Amino acid sequence: MLKRPSGKDRARASLLPGVAIDKTSGRAVYWQLYDEIKRLILEGIIPAGASMPSPRLVALEFGCSRHTVSTAYEYLSAEGLLSASHGVGTFVSSLVESSLLNYSPAESEVQLARRLQPSNFALALEAGRMERDEEDPLQTFGIPDADNFPWSAWSKVYASIWSKPQRDLTRATSPQGYPRLREAICTFVHRVRGIRATPDQVLITAGTTQSVDLLLRSMLNEGDPVWVEDPGRPKAVALIQAMKMRRVAIPVDEHGLRVDIAEERAPDARAALITPSHHYPTGATLSLERRLRLLAWASRTGGWIFEDDYDGELIADGRPLLPIYSLGQNDRIVYMGTFSKSISPQLRLGYIICNRELIQHLTRFRYFLDYFPAMNMQPVLAEFISSGKLDAYVRRMRKSYRERQKAFASQIERHSHPEFELYRNAPALFQPLGLSEASYSDSALAQLARGHGIPAFPLSPFYFDVTPKPGIIIGTGRLPLEMIPQIVENLVEASRMLSSA
Amino acid sequence: MLKRPSGKDRARASLLPGVAIDKTSGRAVYWQLYDEIKRLILEGIIPAGASMPSPRLVALEFGCSRHTVSTAYEYLSAEGLLSASHGVGTFVSSLVESSLLNYSPAESEVQLARRLQPSNFALALEAGRMERDEEDPLQTFGIPDADNFPWSAWSKVYASIWSKPQRDLTRATSPQGYPRLREAICTFVHRVRGIRATPDQVLITAGTTQSVDLLLRSMLNEGDPVWVEDPGRPKAVALIQAMKMRRVAIPVDEHGLRVDIAEERAPDARAALITPSHHYPTGATLSLERRLRLLAWASRTGGWIFEDDYDGELIADGRPLLPIYSLGQNDRIVYMGTFSKSISPQLRLGYIICNRELIQHLTRFRYFLDYFPAMNMQPVLAEFISSGKLDAYVRRMRKSYRERQKAFASQIERHSHPEFELYRNAPALFQPLGLSEASYSDSALAQLARGHGIPAFPLSPFYFDVTPKPGIIIGTGRLPLEMIPQIVENLVEASRMLSSA
Repeated sequence: MLKRPSGKDRARASLLPGVAIDKTSGRAVYWQLYDEIKRLILEGIIPAGASMPSPRLVALEFGCSRHTVSTAYEYLSAEGLLSASHGVGTFVSSLVESSLLNYSPAESEVQLARRLQPSNFALALEAGRMERDEEDPLQTFGIPDADNFPWSAWSKVYASIWSKPQRDLTRATSPQGYPRLREAICTFVHRVRGIRATPDQVLITAGTTQSVDLLLRSMLNEGDPVWVEDPGRPKAVALIQAMKMRRVAIPVDEHGLRVDIAEERAPDARAALITPSHHYPTGATLSLERRLRLLAWASRTGGWIFEDDYDGELIADGRPLLPIYSLGQNDRIVYMGTFSKSISPQLRLGYIICNRELIQHLTRFRYFLDYFPAMNMQPVLAEFISSGKLDAYVRRMRKSYRERQKAFASQIERHSHPEFELYRNAPALFQPLGLSEASYSDSALAQLARGHGIPAFPLSPFYFDVTPKPGIIIGTGRLPLEMIPQIVENLVEASRMLSSA
Repeated sequence: MLKRPSGKDRARASLLPGVAIDKTSGRAVYWQLYDEIKRLILEGIIPAGASMPSPRLVALEFGCSRHTVSTAYEYLSAEGLLSASHGVGTFVSSLVESSLLNYSPAESEVQLARRLQPSNFALALEAGRMERDEEDPLQTFGIPDADNFPWSAWSKVYASIWSKPQRDLTRATSPQGYPRLREAICTFVHRVRGIRATPDQVLITAGTTQSVDLLLRSMLNEGDPVWVEDPGRPKAVALIQAMKMRRVAIPVDEHGLRVDIAEERAPDARAALITPSHHYPTGATLSLERRLRLLAWASRTGGWIFEDDYDGELIADGRPLLPIYSLGQNDRIVYMGTFSKSISPQLRLGYIICNRELIQHLTRFRYFLDYFPAMNMQPVLAEFISSGKLDAYVRRMRKSYRERQKAFASQIERHSHPEFELYRNAPALFQPLGLSEASYSDSALAQLARGHGIPAFPLSPFYFDVTPKPGIIIGTGRLPLEMIPQIVENLVEASRMLSSA
């Protein structure tokens, strides 16, 4: 196979064809040789049974020591790819059936994709995907304005804890979450959300997406009916459907979930997944009457209330729009909080609060799925809360978000554009704008708005069974205050353009 | 209900029974009043329909302004708990049916636990739990010695990135993982594990526990046969069983998984979950012959090889014990790596490497389950790798772990205690010790050893169908070098004590 080089070819021919050693790479030469010879063997360029050139000759060719080459050979022998026969030489192992290993680049991506054979669960999840690129900041409207976050103060807290960490810190691996963070969360949720809980009632999670998955997976079975809000969260609904639970979509009006309809349609539901303080994505608040009715249903039937309070700390209505959980002790409410809105989704830190027994169950359960929540940020966040830094930041941002939303709303009113109806709900990070009178689709307007750099997303894809009310949701939380008049101007202009198209 | 106080009781009686306001608490008085009145209403102490005392009287009693009390009343009205009737006064809403909300502390924990009704999946997982407290550092033997980690250098890298983060950093939310970390991992795994991959072939996960869950959930279905090592990982096996897949336990000998037996028992397996470089928990390395056979099986049947290379960087045998993945491109191998052993499990950062299509599939899939991996540590780790700091640390620790394991082994040999057989496998963080000749149980010895502060765990609970070989696994990676003679002394002594008991 390896033809003897003639005088002319000599400069380019090699005992190890195609092998180049880079002595400046920082990677030991014996490792490079090992790697390259292995590749030649596995690609069948040096075939099974072939005799290897002597280390002396290889060393000569590559300008290294004989020992270096012998080490590479030794490693390859240890791995079984070469076998040395004393006095005779070194051979490529007859075990190597290179044909097995060859990757065929001719295989098309379609064939490959077919060979992937995802699970039924994965296929069902995929089917519920919303056409939305959440990596595009203009397509998300619930992301906080993290540019204002006191990164430097946070970084100092980090250094104060981790530059010389205490021993118990580097060993903590609690699946329930770092105890001091759980304590801090208890005081925080009491202050900002009126919730009374003890640290043994708290589980730290990687955010609400994971909280929902943990709850569904550990508490419900295939076929179990689950109430979901309509419009609501497509991601959670896709998960419920892929898990083969029965998704019961319940209409939402300006007072939140129509609990009466829910009870009529599926009184036997095992759980209700809801956003009562600030409905996602319309911003409605569930009325007390409906809250009490929901609690009565849960007590009577043993159904769960999975309360997603994703942006509670930021609701800036001037009056408390507190979670159902704050209404009192009820073992059927599971409260989900997150730091994704108050700090940043990048933290991936959220929490579940509920009765102690359920927390113990969830803790044991999560141990199998992701072992425990990453430790690095937990003590930092605990300190950030305990020192009052988070409260101060949340207060400041709540005010700022309110100002932006107010400015946005007043500009919309000033224009009194006939096609825009302002949803008059508590403001936080986003503001929906109804488009019932519009002659164009909400996705067309959202797209045009994004073209102007405005975070905007259509409302209609958030509907399931209910006939969609067209609208767009604007991420007001990240609009620069001074830009808002121009932004509304652009929105009105975009709407006019579409109407006359 | 509230009896009019007589002169004598006046000092103690109150318009709001049991309410105490703490003006030094830092929590606004109107919030405290709101909280307390709400509690009184919800607990039925102030019943539905009752008339509330006037703000003037309440202000007088608690020494605050009338406005403060009015604000609390206003909030309670906004929430629907009170209703004000102009000129007549303020009443507790007739909606409140306090009986609904009352928590009955009389309910026993047993009743509560029964009412939890975990999912079938959760119950099945729980049934597969191993009796082992992983929060007890003496019961874990795979934990690295994080006290040597350059925390201060790490902390500096953190500060350099996050004390004034770039805008694109605070907005990155990639479900596949931060691109620069994926790049850094590619160069790292090439250097230390001989793996060639491009960043689009890498998915960042929250560690191997999550990697396994993601793979099982997204690629396999109920009833699918899966090869697992016996002995092996009880946690992963519990997961496979709870997902109703068919767990096919395959014996492991000193050359790793008996691929021949596996092919005989379940040639139609959809996946093989294995630790070929350093079998968990015996330390065996899968021979080349068996690797090639495994690859041939995967190519022929389309079965997956889920390769768990949990401590590859630390194996200190002097020769490379590389992963199967390094044998060449094969679309059926999914490689799982982790920073849990090379740095610390506290990071919760691991990765999956495989063909691009599968990575895309996993990325879309994980979006629904935990959205994206926490960002904070990803750029720090990327920089730590790129700057060569991780390589240096891993080299140092590999040497240190090897020294400890060698010292341990030589002490065992020195004693030539008839009941201890040293497993002669590549050392990393742990060392198994066989106890076939012992008259006592391996768990008894492990427990006694832990009483001496030695990280020790019995080997027999890691067996599934194969008859357990008794033994103990010592976490040599965290034994202080100078203590090792004494530790082995103690082990031998413990064994003698148990034998003569």
